[in-house]
Amino acid sequence: MVFSAAQLMRRRGVAATGMRDVVAHARAPRGSLQHYFPGGKEQLVNEAVRWGGNYAARRVARFLAALPEPTPSGLYAQMVRQWTDELQATPDATTGCPVAAAVVDCVETTESTRTAAAEAFACWTRPVARALTDMGVPSARAESLATLMISAAEGALLIARAERDARALTAVARELGPLLDAAVTRRP
Amino acid sequence: MVFSAAQLMRRRGVAATGMRDVVAHARAPRGSLQHYFPGGKEQLVNEAVRWGGNYAARRVARFLAALPEPTPSGLYAQMVRQWTDELQATPDATTGCPVAAAVVDCVETTESTRTAAAEAFACWTRPVARALTDMGVPSARAESLATLMISAAEGALLIARAERDARALTAVARELGPLLDAAVTRRP
Repeated sequence: MVFSAAQLMRRRGVAATGMRDVVAHARAPRGSLQHYFPGGKEQLVNEAVRWGGNYAARRVARFLAALPEPTPSGLYAQMVRQWTDELQATPDATTGCPVAAAVVDCVETTESTRTAAAEAFACWTRPVARALTDMGVPSARAESLATLMISAAEGALLIARAERDARALTAVARELGPLLDAAVTRRP
Repeated sequence: MVFSAAQLMRRRGVAATGMRDVVAHARAPRGSLQHYFPGGKEQLVNEAVRWGGNYAARRVARFLAALPEPTPSGLYAQMVRQWTDELQATPDATTGCPVAAAVVDCVETTESTRTAAAEAFACWTRPVARALTDMGVPSARAESLATLMISAAEGALLIARAERDARALTAVARELGPLLDAAVTRRP
């Protein structure tokens, strides 16, 4: 059900994601929602946000393992390609990021969701920054470059969803690649 | 009322922005909504999205006029500072971007809002790309760099709102500045 909630939030935002839709999407028995989520929608949304952060973080390790020679631009191209592939596969259902949805809809009203979103971004930033450091980027810059990579991908995804076109995502990966590789100051 | 709708969308998203809240925020008479917005909430949201794009575009000219010596990094610092200033002025009410809110909440369900959002991003990107070209950036790169600038700012604003801290915004402006200035290949 956490997975289903995240998938619906990615497409419609948090406000339009009803508890009944989540149960239907997950093909779960009706009563299971109250059983597993006594905190109601707030708890379910927060767990979906955490799921999103953990999922993105785990993907970083998979991308790195798949690169024959890891470079910052190679890692970033993989991170962005995850979204361009998805956009191209489902042009009518442009799915976004569940954490971004939580920020837009809940930051002002629901403090627990705000902190869950901040933790999800941090959970994703950490392995990216660590990967940069491992590739030879000075640790003083690794975190801010990781923040830039994630920021640019999140913003380009907003533009790409509005345009129903991956153009913004590919532009961001292409323009940032050389900057990221130039930040490597020592052989790992 | 368009301004009020945009302000509420920035804080709570589109779904939680009720028509009555907009009328109350604008201190407008109740009947005026049906009079000016016969297309209902969809029309009002789309006009708020357009307002957001036009506002951001107009600010670009103002930022340029205020810079003693226009540079890409100087322009970007001003664009980002608009949001860091706002975050620091109102730490409890972290306002976002009305166009981002429309994308998250409406892209899948409301086609007219999706195209309004795409046009708003384009409306903002054009003057940024033109400014880069005027500063000596080759026209082949100006548009994709403008897309990167706006993407990174939008994504960093999501992180900053979640963290209630301008850190991501300042990191993005600091890291992108040298890349942008290095794209200048001729004296304007």
